[in-house]
Amino acid sequence: LKGGAAAPVADPYANEPARLPALIVRSQKPMNSETPKELLVGSLITPNELFYVRNHLPVPHVDAATYRLRVEGEGVRTMELSLEELQTRFRRHSVTATLQCTGNRRNDFNLTQRPVKGLEWDGGSISTAVWSGVRLRDVLLAAGLEDDNPDVAHIQFEGLDTDMASQCYGASVEVDKAMDPQGDVLLAFEMKGAPLPADHGYPVRVVVPGVAGCRSVKWLGKIVASDQESASFWQRKDYKAFSPSVDWHNVDWESAPAIQNMPVTSHICEPLSGAAIDDDEVTVKGYAWSGGGQGIIRVDVSADGGATWHTAELNKVPQKRGRGWAWALWEATVPLPKGAKGAVQLVAKATDESYNTQPEQAAPIWNLRGVNCNSWHRVSVNVQ
Amino acid sequence: LKGGAAAPVADPYANEPARLPALIVRSQKPMNSETPKELLVGSLITPNELFYVRNHLPVPHVDAATYRLRVEGEGVRTMELSLEELQTRFRRHSVTATLQCTGNRRNDFNLTQRPVKGLEWDGGSISTAVWSGVRLRDVLLAAGLEDDNPDVAHIQFEGLDTDMASQCYGASVEVDKAMDPQGDVLLAFEMKGAPLPADHGYPVRVVVPGVAGCRSVKWLGKIVASDQESASFWQRKDYKAFSPSVDWHNVDWESAPAIQNMPVTSHICEPLSGAAIDDDEVTVKGYAWSGGGQGIIRVDVSADGGATWHTAELNKVPQKRGRGWAWALWEATVPLPKGAKGAVQLVAKATDESYNTQPEQAAPIWNLRGVNCNSWHRVSVNVQ
Ligand SMILES: [Mo]
Ligand SMILES: [Mo]
Repeated sequence: LKGGAAAPVADPYANEPARLPALIVRSQKPMNSETPKELLVGSLITPNELFYVRNHLPVPHVDAATYRLRVEGEGVRTMELSLEELQTRFRRHSVTATLQCTGNRRNDFNLTQRPVKGLEWDGGSISTAVWSGVRLRDVLLAAGLEDDNPDVAHIQFEGLDTDMASQCYGASVEVDKAMDPQGDVLLAFEMKGAPLPADHGYPVRVVVPGVAGCRSVKWLGKIVASDQESASFWQRKDYKAFSPSVDWHNVDWESAPAIQNMPVTSHICEPLSGAAIDDDEVTVKGYAWSGGGQGIIRVDVSADGGATWHTAELNKVPQKRGRGWAWALWEATVPLPKGAKGAVQLVAKATDESYNTQPEQAAPIWNLRGVNCNSWHRVSVNVQ
Repeated sequence: LKGGAAAPVADPYANEPARLPALIVRSQKPMNSETPKELLVGSLITPNELFYVRNHLPVPHVDAATYRLRVEGEGVRTMELSLEELQTRFRRHSVTATLQCTGNRRNDFNLTQRPVKGLEWDGGSISTAVWSGVRLRDVLLAAGLEDDNPDVAHIQFEGLDTDMASQCYGASVEVDKAMDPQGDVLLAFEMKGAPLPADHGYPVRVVVPGVAGCRSVKWLGKIVASDQESASFWQRKDYKAFSPSVDWHNVDWESAPAIQNMPVTSHICEPLSGAAIDDDEVTVKGYAWSGGGQGIIRVDVSADGGATWHTAELNKVPQKRGRGWAWALWEATVPLPKGAKGAVQLVAKATDESYNTQPEQAAPIWNLRGVNCNSWHRVSVNVQ
């Protein structure tokens, strides 16, 4: 080019944190990686370094010493808080909560012969942590926000992660969730007692229990009280689900609400698809979770397409009704159909405390973004 | 008999209130009757005299002048309130809420070839009213109950309706629901601006929005704060759902939680089963509702078994997210499959704001008491 070559653009992903090779990478830049199934069912609380990673942009490097969290908008006094102020001015709370990507199990839509766009998540973009921090409600109250202020409908979050045009990641939740004393929304600075890892929002992130992971904004820079939802692409033009009759050519993004609470789901983590079974029964393990604080009350497993069901043993952290933020791990030993040889399909379905259950097939809940896949989970094994 | 004939026992049902003949009676003593489908879809707010009736016992005749509501138990000062005190000492609130019997749509389980015990409800044991009264929270606060009192887990309700052994109807809800300012639990004394009809709890009933109708105790006599659920049969040994693998011979009632929030459901009210259709399209109308305040965001209708879906127009009262207590009525005009003659099955499925949807078939959610039937609703019409 006349005037000389363009200056080389520095790779914004040059300083990403180190990650364990055990994570299954679905995209490198930004980093998106899921937890292997056998490790998911290994512990009720996912080890921090195995927690699935869902980044939208490069990981920002934030200096805790100069970090300031800004609070502004309708009905609040503008406030800037250092990390130390956040940690010392407010009462500390811990919440055990599962986070799940809205696209978890997206691959099951691809199996319907109607492929969807998006990261090809299998069942591992879900994990559970003990989050510690302070309540968003307490910070908003300190900024002067009153309950039932009619000018405020949404609490917006802005991340410190930005794209090449300096646009940050953003999302919002309803103010009623943010201010609900039973909603347990945290500004978290610890995971399992350790400072947040860089991939999970160091030094401060939002944790919105029961809600799609995309609203739990990491590397939190700003909180805005508003009568409007976040204007971000991810709030307005993504993370919504439509009827199977809606596709990219006829989608009206405003016609569906942003996903917040997620529906009840489950996943068979063991055995893996195609596993050889040389026995007349099989031990099946997995996880189950539902959004909105609706704890899992039952998981049923079938080896005959749903004709007979076997109720699994549940392993879960005790949580109050309506605040069942954490998943259940489960295990069932299921007899194989008499004389079965070759491919046998195992299916699992969960029931939550609202008695919502999973739909049988993925096709009737197919949606163009491939989100909220919660049909019965199916795994074919090979009986010897 | 020696010593003469036994004294005739007065019929405890001799003084039941007058009812409209339009209601479809499923049992006379006690009265259980459903609203005809064409009337359900006739208005967003069901006329009081057409509201479905679900009584467990004879209707008590309560004198409003001598009526007293007693509040007692853990963490509260015992209090007795006259109707006038209830109406004047507390702030008045109105809530539009749908109530549904847990057994609504039970007949769809009978169609699975595995009959269940219970009232043979079709789809009409659901209705919507504007309830006015005072908040249960405000009354409990006046009795001294503090938020997060660790000794109180449940709020029990006792009705003034009793059986021959003077046992009253009873139920309970979690204290977190009762005390939640966003939970909208009312002690209601009006339906659509008129005093409660005798069949609906005159002079005072509980209304627990988003929760199975059986917890909204009518003819309320007593409120008890406790660490235990109501000891009533209906709380402990009924109104629970189990796996299809559990039947009367192996049921462990303690192994499932009492139904509170109900799952997402829908019903086709027009056309009726067997209707003759002399056209190449059909207009389908119905209702959809979900428990736990999860408003309906979409209803899809199919005339080809779910291969293609048509999204219905929704008609609903505006309510905030998480407080969507009222149903949606819906209507869709759906093309019939090309060249179809004879039986064509119409199916409807609803999605709520947690993106929970209905399961396809009733058999995998079959349960011995025949409750929470929320599979796709199916109606066969006769195409001419
Ligand atoms: Mo996500
Ligand atoms: Mo009921």
